[in-house]
Amino acid sequence: MSTLSALAPANIRAIAPYQGGKPISELAREMGLNEADIVKLASNENPLGMSPKAQMALEAAIENIARYPDGNSFALRDAVSHKFGVQASQIVFGNGSNDILELVARAFLTAGDDVIYSQHAFAVYPLVTQAVGATGIVVPAVAFGHDLAGFLKAITPNTKLMFVANPNNPTGTLISKPDLKAFLQQVPKHILVVLDEAYDEYLSPADKSEAIGWLAEFENLIISRSFSKAYGLAGLRVGFGLMHATVADLLNRVRQPFNVNSLAQVAAIESLLDDDFVARSYAANQAGMLQMTQGLQQLGLSYIPSYGNFVSFKVDNASAVNQALLKQGVIVRPVANYEMPAYLRVSIGLFSENARFLEVLTKILAS
Amino acid sequence: MSTLSALAPANIRAIAPYQGGKPISELAREMGLNEADIVKLASNENPLGMSPKAQMALEAAIENIARYPDGNSFALRDAVSHKFGVQASQIVFGNGSNDILELVARAFLTAGDDVIYSQHAFAVYPLVTQAVGATGIVVPAVAFGHDLAGFLKAITPNTKLMFVANPNNPTGTLISKPDLKAFLQQVPKHILVVLDEAYDEYLSPADKSEAIGWLAEFENLIISRSFSKAYGLAGLRVGFGLMHATVADLLNRVRQPFNVNSLAQVAAIESLLDDDFVARSYAANQAGMLQMTQGLQQLGLSYIPSYGNFVSFKVDNASAVNQALLKQGVIVRPVANYEMPAYLRVSIGLFSENARFLEVLTKILAS
Repeated sequence: MSTLSALAPANIRAIAPYQGGKPISELAREMGLNEADIVKLASNENPLGMSPKAQMALEAAIENIARYPDGNSFALRDAVSHKFGVQASQIVFGNGSNDILELVARAFLTAGDDVIYSQHAFAVYPLVTQAVGATGIVVPAVAFGHDLAGFLKAITPNTKLMFVANPNNPTGTLISKPDLKAFLQQVPKHILVVLDEAYDEYLSPADKSEAIGWLAEFENLIISRSFSKAYGLAGLRVGFGLMHATVADLLNRVRQPFNVNSLAQVAAIESLLDDDFVARSYAANQAGMLQMTQGLQQLGLSYIPSYGNFVSFKVDNASAVNQALLKQGVIVRPVANYEMPAYLRVSIGLFSENARFLEVLTKILAS
Repeated sequence: MSTLSALAPANIRAIAPYQGGKPISELAREMGLNEADIVKLASNENPLGMSPKAQMALEAAIENIARYPDGNSFALRDAVSHKFGVQASQIVFGNGSNDILELVARAFLTAGDDVIYSQHAFAVYPLVTQAVGATGIVVPAVAFGHDLAGFLKAITPNTKLMFVANPNNPTGTLISKPDLKAFLQQVPKHILVVLDEAYDEYLSPADKSEAIGWLAEFENLIISRSFSKAYGLAGLRVGFGLMHATVADLLNRVRQPFNVNSLAQVAAIESLLDDDFVARSYAANQAGMLQMTQGLQQLGLSYIPSYGNFVSFKVDNASAVNQALLKQGVIVRPVANYEMPAYLRVSIGLFSENARFLEVLTKILAS
């Protein structure tokens, strides 16, 4: 190890950075393909794009970009407050919901604290834990889902935080509302619970989360939401957390003063108001999920039933199949780093994108 | 203290968040003014806006916002690498240069480490130090500037990092190149030096930094640059750090995978290519600085000669004068939190904005 590298603590040196979905431009460079010929179904993005209202607002806002953003996101705060029926003081905005997950770790954890999360859960939970020198405790999954009884059993005297993803990515599993509420009732009050609901907009009306209504009962509950999925604003980076005002105040102390850019704020406001766009995105995902899972079934492939806008399927030689897909200009997500080396995760795209994926996969499996 | 608040460590609870310049929209709400009647000279923004080329690129890029950003900023990295003659591996991008300052603290500091910075230096240095539980050592300023001999004397066995702002904000002071280089030669190699050059584009050709050429000699040097000042992209949030590849690798381990949004990447690339816009911004600032300092002189006010796009001036009852300016729709920056309670900092705006500020200030001082 170099002297320079030794200046950083061991936990930092040991971090293996997050691997996102391969960008279209990167695959085009690597394989000598045209970007227009590439289908990316690797990052659970909204294939419909963003709300047309958000797009119009963005175009108008570009004019003013030499000004710093409103560091308090006043107008967006007002919009979230009205939409979700929470106080302005209960909201924290982030540079994507990734920022919220990190802020919780940075505001509350120190070396020696334990953090509980599930096997196969979102990769950012262990990363933010490791970055602050805390210790992650992984609870083995049950049928690819969270074992909440296992979470409770895993509690140590040093446990300060739990991450619960619902639906979970990359497995797409969902915890029922009664199970989740019973769990929260059993978690000691001195342990914070981050409930990551990045995919909530893709749930059916019956399944949709009611956790915001539970905030008054559970002061240790932090709900995290994203504009990167159904709202279609992944490129702009904006998400938010809803929580007790005391917890929000602490997160606001550690966040960067201008962590959410001006255009993200403008687009997020319009997106919240455009129920029609979210409804269309939901419907397109339902139809696309049927197309995708029927296609996988026809290929004789098993998959994990998913409540998100993606599905993880099992395939022999997953890594080789992934490479073959890439050569044909189709980007999906390998999930070996989620302890699922036999699986690939595919996002639900447009009808034509899903069809292209299934067609290419069929050829690869036949060859 | 509530039980909930007690879950956070003491250093986090003690943070007093950064206070940015008051947004125009906020003053309009508070004072019942029209936004169009407000002049904001509070955040060292570029009054010319952004490069027209960047604006065109932004408009084109909006289309693709549902996609995640390129987490490695490939194209922007290429542009910075060519522009500044550094290897791609030496560059780290941030959500503003604030992100770079924070990443250095998070990658290298632990509780017990000491960090050295100057009195009257940028407020984010103590904030990022405090957020990781390290200890700040403030070196008293000399004539409002950095006392680099004092920095060397302040070194303790626990010192791991120094922040040097050049030019400094909010004082506008500049360290000469020979003094800076002599300082770097005396700093022990195990202490990292962050050289914050957010205002470098406003320096004359003779004064412009040559520190990038020193990176090979000083492995512990980290240069931080911003697109929020002369490049006019404050609202988009993008900055970068140049450093030894080993240090860059460590910062990249702790940064958020998508910390720089897509539009910021696109606009930054075009901004780097538009030398004409930067030249116009520099010239406008030179003329505006003359207008502003002559106006202050005519009012009999003393000011700190500034190398940036702002100037801090001394005025009786600074806090009351600030309030009176706000009532008239003029936003400047109080700097009491920089241990400069007798001063106000005003950014160099358009000719008409500077004139409006001087006119309103004249009336206030006469009343």
